[in-house]
Amino acid sequence: MNLAAGIDVGGTKCLGVVIDDQGLVVREVRKPTPTADQLVETLAAIVGELGEHATIGLGVPGLISREGVIRSSPNMSTAIEFPVREKLAQALGEPVWCDNDATCAALAEWQRGAGVGSRDMWMVTLGTGIGGGLVSGGALQHGAHGHAGEVGHMVVQADGDDCPCGQRGCWERYASGAGLSQLAGGITGEEVISRARSGDVAALEVLNEYCTWVALGLANIANMSDPDTIVVGGGVMENADMLLPLIDQRFATMLYAPSHRVHPVLKSAQLGERAGAIGAALLHLHD
Amino acid sequence: MNLAAGIDVGGTKCLGVVIDDQGLVVREVRKPTPTADQLVETLAAIVGELGEHATIGLGVPGLISREGVIRSSPNMSTAIEFPVREKLAQALGEPVWCDNDATCAALAEWQRGAGVGSRDMWMVTLGTGIGGGLVSGGALQHGAHGHAGEVGHMVVQADGDDCPCGQRGCWERYASGAGLSQLAGGITGEEVISRARSGDVAALEVLNEYCTWVALGLANIANMSDPDTIVVGGGVMENADMLLPLIDQRFATMLYAPSHRVHPVLKSAQLGERAGAIGAALLHLHD
Repeated sequence: MNLAAGIDVGGTKCLGVVIDDQGLVVREVRKPTPTADQLVETLAAIVGELGEHATIGLGVPGLISREGVIRSSPNMSTAIEFPVREKLAQALGEPVWCDNDATCAALAEWQRGAGVGSRDMWMVTLGTGIGGGLVSGGALQHGAHGHAGEVGHMVVQADGDDCPCGQRGCWERYASGAGLSQLAGGITGEEVISRARSGDVAALEVLNEYCTWVALGLANIANMSDPDTIVVGGGVMENADMLLPLIDQRFATMLYAPSHRVHPVLKSAQLGERAGAIGAALLHLHD
Repeated sequence: MNLAAGIDVGGTKCLGVVIDDQGLVVREVRKPTPTADQLVETLAAIVGELGEHATIGLGVPGLISREGVIRSSPNMSTAIEFPVREKLAQALGEPVWCDNDATCAALAEWQRGAGVGSRDMWMVTLGTGIGGGLVSGGALQHGAHGHAGEVGHMVVQADGDDCPCGQRGCWERYASGAGLSQLAGGITGEEVISRARSGDVAALEVLNEYCTWVALGLANIANMSDPDTIVVGGGVMENADMLLPLIDQRFATMLYAPSHRVHPVLKSAQLGERAGAIGAALLHLHD
């Protein structure tokens, strides 16, 4: 059996898995995400604890070059121009595959999750920010410089709210978990959803507005690349039972020329918090 | 020598070409675009006048299915659910390749124009509306249902101007030739540019605003798919010498994390009005 190891470097924790030929997780290790200067050491320790494996892959948030250099990362401001792939490969004495964490999650959902069988797929993760990854014409897309899928900073309201990135009106200002909280006047997304479930009219209105923003960005994505499937994941989608029907309803009217085309199918992500690590483990097959 | 014929069905004219192995146009035929009920007859007549050819391809505006059915077309409102590929193939007694006109133009610029050598390319045409086509990972992308590249209806100002498509704030409201005219209070885009060339300060301000809208959409595209090259064409770009530097300047600041990445190169389209027909002739190689 070929065992493949993958590690997802998250904002608060690093999650390592070993998967078998069927993509099933056979071992798992978690450690708090350290500062950049301790990153390679921590990753090497996780690999040690994961044990036997034939290949090792790494998913990292932020702009990662095709050579595995972290160009900049929102969660690791000191990791600018940090060659994490090369350093970890040296520390381990084995090759390391590396890509953006959202690209890894898209790969995992495509190969082992909600997107199985798709040829043109987007995965969008609605978390604190918004991440994305895509498959086009049956191939995982990295982009020319490794940065494909940065949908969170698609501008959807040119004169809208300031974004820390320097632009105004980025999609993640409105459609991320943080955006939901902001639309609700500061209470958490969890709380809005809980209130809406109890029938609170004001909370339901906020959710409707939120789902309209989500659908608007998904329609932009669909207009540009015409996927058969859009997989929606991330923390917010733990409430997919409530949110996805609302998003779907709006999406169906916001797509260009909706009555003259086959619509992409919106699906809830299946692999949860392990998607990034599982995708990292699969990178060696889709470089 | 393998001669390939291609026809671009435009809003006012149908342009047919025959190209040689090098992509050079060896023959050309033009006819006014007829109503939908006369379309196949007109196309067959063009093919007849084009003479010897080994293959024939067709570029059509609007939503075209992978099977060559016009689902809806802005320039041919009576051509809904019209199987143009099949009808023309029957009339000619030979197979016909068919795709969206902007996808054809992208293919032509990629293979024979400004995008030669690119692996991840967008072509965007700024005309009366905005069209688009893309190459990802070294392959022309059609999308799951043939509709990839519809960038004109990407919403960039959610509460913006009404668009005939039914949405608000679509990119082509601001960044098409019609958008330029609207920003200028109704005078034509040609006139704005002519005045700006003479140093008219108000016209220059309008052009600056226009180029900011163009750059905003190009940055959205670049954030989503990370191309190495974006080819910009269409009628507006006949003034690329004046506009492209302004667009480029703004684009360089609007891209996500611009100081931490290699930027896509913006290039002016090379094939002009023949791009669609040349791309149609190349479709048989990139189906």
